[in-house]
Amino acid sequence: MTHRGDPTAKRIERLIDNVGRRVMKRCDDAARFTDREGGIERTFCCASMRRLHGTLSEWMAGAGVTCRVDSAGNFYCRRAGNGRTGKTLLVGSHLDTVPNAGRYDGVLGVMLGLAVVELADATGTDLPFDLEAVGFSDEEGIRYGVPFLGSRAAVGTLDDDLLSRSDARGVAMRTALDDFGCDATSIGDAILDPQRYLGFLEAHIEQGPTLEAEKLALGVVEAIVGQTRAGVRFRGEAGHAGTVPMRLRRDAMAAAAEWIVEVERIAKGIEGLVATVGRVDVVPNATNVIAGEVNLSMDVRHVDGAIRASAMERLVAAGHEIAERRSVEYAVDWSEGQEAVKTDAALTELLAECVCGEQGSEPLMTSGAGHDSMIVASRMPVALLFIRCAGGISHHPDESVTGDDVISALRAMWNFIVRLAARESDDDAATTGGKPTVKQGAMGELD
Amino acid sequence: MTHRGDPTAKRIERLIDNVGRRVMKRCDDAARFTDREGGIERTFCCASMRRLHGTLSEWMAGAGVTCRVDSAGNFYCRRAGNGRTGKTLLVGSHLDTVPNAGRYDGVLGVMLGLAVVELADATGTDLPFDLEAVGFSDEEGIRYGVPFLGSRAAVGTLDDDLLSRSDARGVAMRTALDDFGCDATSIGDAILDPQRYLGFLEAHIEQGPTLEAEKLALGVVEAIVGQTRAGVRFRGEAGHAGTVPMRLRRDAMAAAAEWIVEVERIAKGIEGLVATVGRVDVVPNATNVIAGEVNLSMDVRHVDGAIRASAMERLVAAGHEIAERRSVEYAVDWSEGQEAVKTDAALTELLAECVCGEQGSEPLMTSGAGHDSMIVASRMPVALLFIRCAGGISHHPDESVTGDDVISALRAMWNFIVRLAARESDDDAATTGGKPTVKQGAMGELD
Repeated sequence: MTHRGDPTAKRIERLIDNVGRRVMKRCDDAARFTDREGGIERTFCCASMRRLHGTLSEWMAGAGVTCRVDSAGNFYCRRAGNGRTGKTLLVGSHLDTVPNAGRYDGVLGVMLGLAVVELADATGTDLPFDLEAVGFSDEEGIRYGVPFLGSRAAVGTLDDDLLSRSDARGVAMRTALDDFGCDATSIGDAILDPQRYLGFLEAHIEQGPTLEAEKLALGVVEAIVGQTRAGVRFRGEAGHAGTVPMRLRRDAMAAAAEWIVEVERIAKGIEGLVATVGRVDVVPNATNVIAGEVNLSMDVRHVDGAIRASAMERLVAAGHEIAERRSVEYAVDWSEGQEAVKTDAALTELLAECVCGEQGSEPLMTSGAGHDSMIVASRMPVALLFIRCAGGISHHPDESVTGDDVISALRAMWNFIVRLAARESDDDAATTGGKPTVKQGAMGELD
Repeated sequence: MTHRGDPTAKRIERLIDNVGRRVMKRCDDAARFTDREGGIERTFCCASMRRLHGTLSEWMAGAGVTCRVDSAGNFYCRRAGNGRTGKTLLVGSHLDTVPNAGRYDGVLGVMLGLAVVELADATGTDLPFDLEAVGFSDEEGIRYGVPFLGSRAAVGTLDDDLLSRSDARGVAMRTALDDFGCDATSIGDAILDPQRYLGFLEAHIEQGPTLEAEKLALGVVEAIVGQTRAGVRFRGEAGHAGTVPMRLRRDAMAAAAEWIVEVERIAKGIEGLVATVGRVDVVPNATNVIAGEVNLSMDVRHVDGAIRASAMERLVAAGHEIAERRSVEYAVDWSEGQEAVKTDAALTELLAECVCGEQGSEPLMTSGAGHDSMIVASRMPVALLFIRCAGGISHHPDESVTGDDVISALRAMWNFIVRLAARESDDDAATTGGKPTVKQGAMGELD
């Protein structure tokens, strides 16, 4: 929507640069809203979340928007359009974090949501839909051990069972909501009416190294992989590390180790599959005692459910074979897991075009991690934009993105909105796509 | 020393049976002296140790002995001989336990020491040496994190540094000794004069499965293996279990697993070597996070120091190779360890003859675990008798020995003492070896 030599386009470019840089600064500022000294920790309905909501409302006060917190603790900031479609485009991500988190996971997507609202306001763009930034209350699942509480509420699956769960301190979710100033009895009010939404655009750091490895700032997600988790136990016989000869041992750790190596080997042989043994708990875990029991976790993901299922069978069978050969017991507790979710084809194509405009290529990719868009997809079309993060590191204070990549993401998202507006509008001229304006004072405010 | 058809020999046989059965009962009784409800836990200079000492003195009151507790909390029970050699034979083991212990580790050897003293008394055997049962105050090292405190004191290596150590509650070892009624300033009084000792005979459960596998009640230890312990660290890169493709991972747990398998393979290929990875600590140890770091322990034992050293080199090199190939960091913190200790050739040969008399074969074996005799060996000749235990299980409430095996051990130990007396005596007739007697009332007492 911007053209070389067009002075207004140049001013919009500069505005996007400034707003993008402010997104970076706001991620830094949001990092100060924490419930734990010395690190970022902001969980569902905690005190720092309430203060952050207040600050977001202050930041947005001048942008002609309505801010509110819904009955599930989700933060919304709506900028009314011209009403022609009667619909809303939702843009954002989540505001909660893991313990000792980085500054970008979730928060960056929310700040970009607020940024496009501000751009719409600053440019006075006449959109045929409302633009609504969202900061979901919980995606990480830290406080109640179940992720996606915010987006579950938005699609109507935050049910009585979940509301009755207690946190580590015995506080029920209902009570936490009530204490936060929400009314848990009206949790149904948090449900978004799919008839009134064009879709949900989420931006998120990749949390993986693929974009970095391909030297690309942005990726467009076609599907979020399905996942199976299993708990695995090898039980042999504990014994004295000095007195039991090697040939008489039934060492549970040696059995587990052989299996871990096999898990890696099998996973490497299946394109697109990841299998991870991340947790290993040895009993008794003492230097001079042969391991009697080892409990392990296995996490298996693939975008194709059939491939994932057959991989699981091979991984489990490998454990059986090893256990039998070593005369140790073997047990697998295998939960059914979660199916893969596809993003909306039309929105994804539109987003890919905008990303291609930014970087000359449009890497369509799968997401190995779950995201709010996976949940929201059950109610409305979703599109998911990935932003390169250094070393693929996430859930860690070292999480890092560059200002240039964020500006690039913001420009792609803005172009997505402008093109979507053109698509949705009966009359192309109703949008300012070809004729953007910049409100008086907008640049000054942002410098 | 007993002969078929000899009625006195038959009575001595019956006496050994009765005393042996009482050893079993005393191990059960000793299990009640514990500092923790619901399990056996009796550590250096604890309250239950003091009560146990009192009970041992009561048990031995009728046997013409002198009981005392030395300045290191070791319990001694001496039965004077005829003084002809001016020397003493020490027989026993340790009275302390690990937490949640079994009934036999250490205690069985002490009860057998008391039993041979009682047998000497009950048979009125005229021995050319004093017989002294010992119950060392600490072998497991639970309270102060350093094992063999009792036998170290007996050989003069319980030094100021050790005496200054504090337990988990901040109580210095000196204070613990003083509180126990000992005088830590006279710790030197606990040293045994090697000129006055013929040697130390220790009986102990095997703590391994070898005797059981060979269907033998008793074994005679030729050497206690040398040991090297190492701390090993693999450091890769933590990452999201869903978003990092297999080919881009530097999974510390996968590297560690490959090494654990290799440790087992190498150890199996070296006769008599044991190598154990008993402790595995994963960071962060979460289901959905690729392991960033794994810290492991390695415990390597062999009776031959050169073989142990070359095995260590191979085991460490295997880790280097794996780490380099996987681009993960690898560090080994390798303590020099402890050299192997040989038992005394002459005493061991004599003990082996007595064991052979019991079971028709004399399995000479190495001990994979350290024992008090390993420490005492620096000051006097030692012999170490192993008694079969079910499944090789030790340091666990399931520790189990049979009454028959204990009676067999007692008979072998008694024969050892009688033959040693014969060897030490200028005049064979001075011992009752060929002409034993049984004191009036001795049988009744023991039934």
